[in-house]
Amino acid sequence: MQKTVRTGVLGATGYTGLEVVRLLAGHPHVELAFVTARSDAGRRISDLYPVPLDVTLQKVDDVRLSDADVLFLCLPHGASQEYARKGTEAGCVVVDLSADHRLSDADNYRHWYGVDHLYPQSLSDAVYGLTEWRRDAVRSAQLIANPGCYPTSILLAVAPLLHAGLLHGVTVIADSKSGVSGAGRVPRVDSLFAEVNENLKPYNVGSVHRHVAEIEQELQRLGGKRPPSGIIFSPHLLPVNRGILSTIYVPWPQDHTEETLRALYEKAYADEPFVWLLPAGHTATLRHVVHTNRCALSLHPVPQRKHLIVVSTIDNLVKGAAGQAVQNMNVRFGLAETAGLL
Amino acid sequence: MQKTVRTGVLGATGYTGLEVVRLLAGHPHVELAFVTARSDAGRRISDLYPVPLDVTLQKVDDVRLSDADVLFLCLPHGASQEYARKGTEAGCVVVDLSADHRLSDADNYRHWYGVDHLYPQSLSDAVYGLTEWRRDAVRSAQLIANPGCYPTSILLAVAPLLHAGLLHGVTVIADSKSGVSGAGRVPRVDSLFAEVNENLKPYNVGSVHRHVAEIEQELQRLGGKRPPSGIIFSPHLLPVNRGILSTIYVPWPQDHTEETLRALYEKAYADEPFVWLLPAGHTATLRHVVHTNRCALSLHPVPQRKHLIVVSTIDNLVKGAAGQAVQNMNVRFGLAETAGLL
Amino acid sequence: MQKTVRTGVLGATGYTGLEVVRLLAGHPHVELAFVTARSDAGRRISDLYPVPLDVTLQKVDDVRLSDADVLFLCLPHGASQEYARKGTEAGCVVVDLSADHRLSDADNYRHWYGVDHLYPQSLSDAVYGLTEWRRDAVRSAQLIANPGCYPTSILLAVAPLLHAGLLHGVTVIADSKSGVSGAGRVPRVDSLFAEVNENLKPYNVGSVHRHVAEIEQELQRLGGKRPPSGIIFSPHLLPVNRGILSTIYVPWPQDHTEETLRALYEKAYADEPFVWLLPAGHTATLRHVVHTNRCALSLHPVPQRKHLIVVSTIDNLVKGAAGQAVQNMNVRFGLAETAGLL
Amino acid sequence: MQKTVRTGVLGATGYTGLEVVRLLAGHPHVELAFVTARSDAGRRISDLYPVPLDVTLQKVDDVRLSDADVLFLCLPHGASQEYARKGTEAGCVVVDLSADHRLSDADNYRHWYGVDHLYPQSLSDAVYGLTEWRRDAVRSAQLIANPGCYPTSILLAVAPLLHAGLLHGVTVIADSKSGVSGAGRVPRVDSLFAEVNENLKPYNVGSVHRHVAEIEQELQRLGGKRPPSGIIFSPHLLPVNRGILSTIYVPWPQDHTEETLRALYEKAYADEPFVWLLPAGHTATLRHVVHTNRCALSLHPVPQRKHLIVVSTIDNLVKGAAGQAVQNMNVRFGLAETAGLL
Repeated sequence: MQKTVRTGVLGATGYTGLEVVRLLAGHPHVELAFVTARSDAGRRISDLYPVPLDVTLQKVDDVRLSDADVLFLCLPHGASQEYARKGTEAGCVVVDLSADHRLSDADNYRHWYGVDHLYPQSLSDAVYGLTEWRRDAVRSAQLIANPGCYPTSILLAVAPLLHAGLLHGVTVIADSKSGVSGAGRVPRVDSLFAEVNENLKPYNVGSVHRHVAEIEQELQRLGGKRPPSGIIFSPHLLPVNRGILSTIYVPWPQDHTEETLRALYEKAYADEPFVWLLPAGHTATLRHVVHTNRCALSLHPVPQRKHLIVVSTIDNLVKGAAGQAVQNMNVRFGLAETAGLL
Repeated sequence: MQKTVRTGVLGATGYTGLEVVRLLAGHPHVELAFVTARSDAGRRISDLYPVPLDVTLQKVDDVRLSDADVLFLCLPHGASQEYARKGTEAGCVVVDLSADHRLSDADNYRHWYGVDHLYPQSLSDAVYGLTEWRRDAVRSAQLIANPGCYPTSILLAVAPLLHAGLLHGVTVIADSKSGVSGAGRVPRVDSLFAEVNENLKPYNVGSVHRHVAEIEQELQRLGGKRPPSGIIFSPHLLPVNRGILSTIYVPWPQDHTEETLRALYEKAYADEPFVWLLPAGHTATLRHVVHTNRCALSLHPVPQRKHLIVVSTIDNLVKGAAGQAVQNMNVRFGLAETAGLL
Repeated sequence: MQKTVRTGVLGATGYTGLEVVRLLAGHPHVELAFVTARSDAGRRISDLYPVPLDVTLQKVDDVRLSDADVLFLCLPHGASQEYARKGTEAGCVVVDLSADHRLSDADNYRHWYGVDHLYPQSLSDAVYGLTEWRRDAVRSAQLIANPGCYPTSILLAVAPLLHAGLLHGVTVIADSKSGVSGAGRVPRVDSLFAEVNENLKPYNVGSVHRHVAEIEQELQRLGGKRPPSGIIFSPHLLPVNRGILSTIYVPWPQDHTEETLRALYEKAYADEPFVWLLPAGHTATLRHVVHTNRCALSLHPVPQRKHLIVVSTIDNLVKGAAGQAVQNMNVRFGLAETAGLL
Repeated sequence: MQKTVRTGVLGATGYTGLEVVRLLAGHPHVELAFVTARSDAGRRISDLYPVPLDVTLQKVDDVRLSDADVLFLCLPHGASQEYARKGTEAGCVVVDLSADHRLSDADNYRHWYGVDHLYPQSLSDAVYGLTEWRRDAVRSAQLIANPGCYPTSILLAVAPLLHAGLLHGVTVIADSKSGVSGAGRVPRVDSLFAEVNENLKPYNVGSVHRHVAEIEQELQRLGGKRPPSGIIFSPHLLPVNRGILSTIYVPWPQDHTEETLRALYEKAYADEPFVWLLPAGHTATLRHVVHTNRCALSLHPVPQRKHLIVVSTIDNLVKGAAGQAVQNMNVRFGLAETAGLL
């Protein structure tokens, strides 16, 4: 008989937290032990959001973490460190959806965040949960750092090339476009409808910051002994609710043909339920993936200009956050990897 | 030779204030004496917004109000009372774009706002600046209460019927839909892109509140001795930046035909540059009016069901706010009524 | 053991057809026997749309209708009559998502469509599948006329009042706003992004046409011996993909209080899995329902103006089309009514 | 006294044609001699579009081209060749907004269009009207090939670098995102609201086609003796009505600093009324330019990765089409270059 995994969610007021709760509420092998929220404790989710979930929010201090087998942390960056520690001490598997455990190195963390991590050992212990490429590590992880949405879209797109050592010394260019829910359910002028609608707004163009550090760490890891030299990353704010599309430019790998490159991707992703490699001539769009846990990939060779372009799309709240978190839980607890996911 | 009107704008950080400044900057017979902002004083508008206006924002305490012939108040409700007084004392004509002087009666004001007005005499002195129907009063006004956006869209739509006494005792039903800029440039979760986009959200449906009080006051005034009994007003938040569309239902006036009703509208609006009565068979839409000072009206008789439907559209930031304010200034200072307006 | 219902879909190139196929592909007790399309036969759905459905489209002449227990007709109006007949003759239960069998009376059909129905007997045989109010008839129906999206949103909103005879002689006013997918996947200038976006467009305002005939037929039926006199129906085209919101105005029923009216709704819908009566103080929005088979209802009493307002929302492609069709199939074949539906 | 230029517009049913007519109708030194349309001749613009232009459309065969000093061709590609010839023969200056005269070389034209140009001599005679860089040639041109919208956004962004010879041998990468009006007012499934909304769709990614040929021709010309080697161009369809944003990646020019590069741009564009070079730290967005004839540029050095990123935005219907056409007319007829333009 199928076991039931007891789940707890810390922080359910944001878009990510709500998405985790929705996925868990529809998951066939899961029970919701508790859901917490800083404010609004005592109220039901259906009172606060337009979803018919009759789940009462609790204060985090009023729940017993050990009532859950797995804890999903949907807290602001910085606030996760303490609860990741408490959760693992209580015996929970912890899936941290914040950025608090994505950098593996304490010095690197201090460099980008300007403060010391509270539990530097957690940084090296945490498994970076890009499921398709870290499945074995996830299976036995106590603490899973759920990847950021931009990194997920970019890493899945170039991992087969990295794995084959074909981006050695290369500067990858990633021109990414993201829906607004990625900015969170935080009242800011920049996220107002009248600011975002009928607009396209690049931000942090070309600057090297925390997300770049996360991406480059994983590019290095996936590149192994033949790593790329770095990435140029240009995010753009798109007037849609959900979805990230990354258009990625890399130099054409010498001694390769369109066929041999496609073969690398087919080999890497043939059995992956959530990576959808589109046939030649098709192009990935947001509609291929929104409201699903899929990553759609399309390959666009430009032999005349000696480049390969890869287009990659995900739903930032699903494969880029809550969905991949559930996927990691499924892997960790031996459930069907697709359970509860579209 | 054409005179130049010296203008001052108090409060330029919101959508309305910025729209007033843009209209004034392009107005052929106007000079901008000063523009103030609570925060951001000392910075240029082009530093803060994506518009190439090389205008430096000042603190309100650093400007001399008497440097302006006319003062536009784009302040939050409540804050206008004091500056309306200071402006008129300094000899300025004051156009108040807030709701602070729209209700004429001090008791009525107290009832709906829960506090006494600081200068109750101002309430009776102020001219309600629905230009098309109060032009003579505006010509000599010292203090002009610029109408709200919803009231403008509704009043222009039914004024010809009211004027003819055809809505006597009637309950008008106004189902209004507004773009998001009407909610202001204020960081609130309800105005976030991801909340508004792909949604339609009615609010205050059927409740009787301050805006209803404003509308009913003017319905009474326009109705004269044969006023309507009241209004049912249902606003809806629409996923567009600009524009209000009101669909208005009234009982069919006895002894009238489609032709006689249309004739009333034609007579009322034949010479109005900013009221666009569409021919029979056409329907007013937001695209008829956005980015202009026009109000588009279409008449839809439903004789089989004994009702007349009037559809009315305006741009909430132009005819519903900044544009009508400039129109009122033009009238007040003897400029061409259309100067600086589309 | 749960039986498996064999299903066939005729016409899968439009938004409705595709939605039916998606729901059936995810339904636990259904197998897809065939899916047809006029053009594109021989191609897979995943080649034509951004969905990973490995279903090959067939020509309708190449399938054997009797391979299906139930046939979903997603054909243009007019084209369904012939296949409804063929399907019932082949022993299939037929769910017609077109308007071809919604009017029960052949004279009425001729009046509104200008031609004779090919099989007038089918009109009287067909069951109008507003599931919540015709469940018993659906259980034994051979031919189910799936309701239109606007009628569904309006009828569910007023049925409890009609059922109690409280709208006797009343003219109901329904101000409805619909997403664009309701206009179908047909290349028309009026449905282009640049025409619809940043716009709101009323159409057929106040006119009496086919959809009004459908609504009034069912208002009569639900009103029984105390029917309303008719409806004023004003549809508006909204810049969203999915969803209908109807704001409905009816005179306040004499001798009733807010509590007694609410009690009528609670009684009618207490056990309905797909009707979500919101608590007092809440307002139905599109986000309550999109991508689900739910209808959300909120009640807004305006006692000062002697009216009741009901706000009703559905997803036009789900509860307004494909979802209600599957719900009807579930009822007809004795499956759990919620199977395969959110 | 200011002269009045007599203007004629051929083809006013599309977005570009309508935008030309609107600009001309508001232009202080212009009269509209005639406006033609293939269908709808005899009707007024205000009957067909939601704009109050009382201009009656004529058949092209019913107008005398010589009644105009300047002819704007807003015809489909292919149809312009004949009327460009007729116009110049009638003594008109011709501004062709189609692609028919953008390629200068007849062989190149045949290669990309698959047919011979009707008047190959016109190709070499036509002046490519990128106003800021071809002003002198425009002043005496008889036939002006108005640049495409994508080329305008890209060429203005890199012209200062090209002019200084800093892109010699370089492959420019241009990741462009365009609003939907660029696809024209043509009924196609791909341009339907429900297809475009909540989506982002790359197309022709990396392929080398007609627009690439146009861009590369002008890159060569602007590069003079030190031209770039080519361009990789990736257009994306964006869910907005108007605007193009191009994010452009070029290798960092050796021996240059951020300051010397910025100085090149300042020198090139200091006196240009329609090029808005944003200060360091600012980023160009669509809102900087929509509904104006401006091009906004921002520079983003990435010295750590040895690249320069330039972000460029225009309104595709204004600077990318109708506005630049009017700007070219202004230059050609000695009017103020900004007349009639925002």
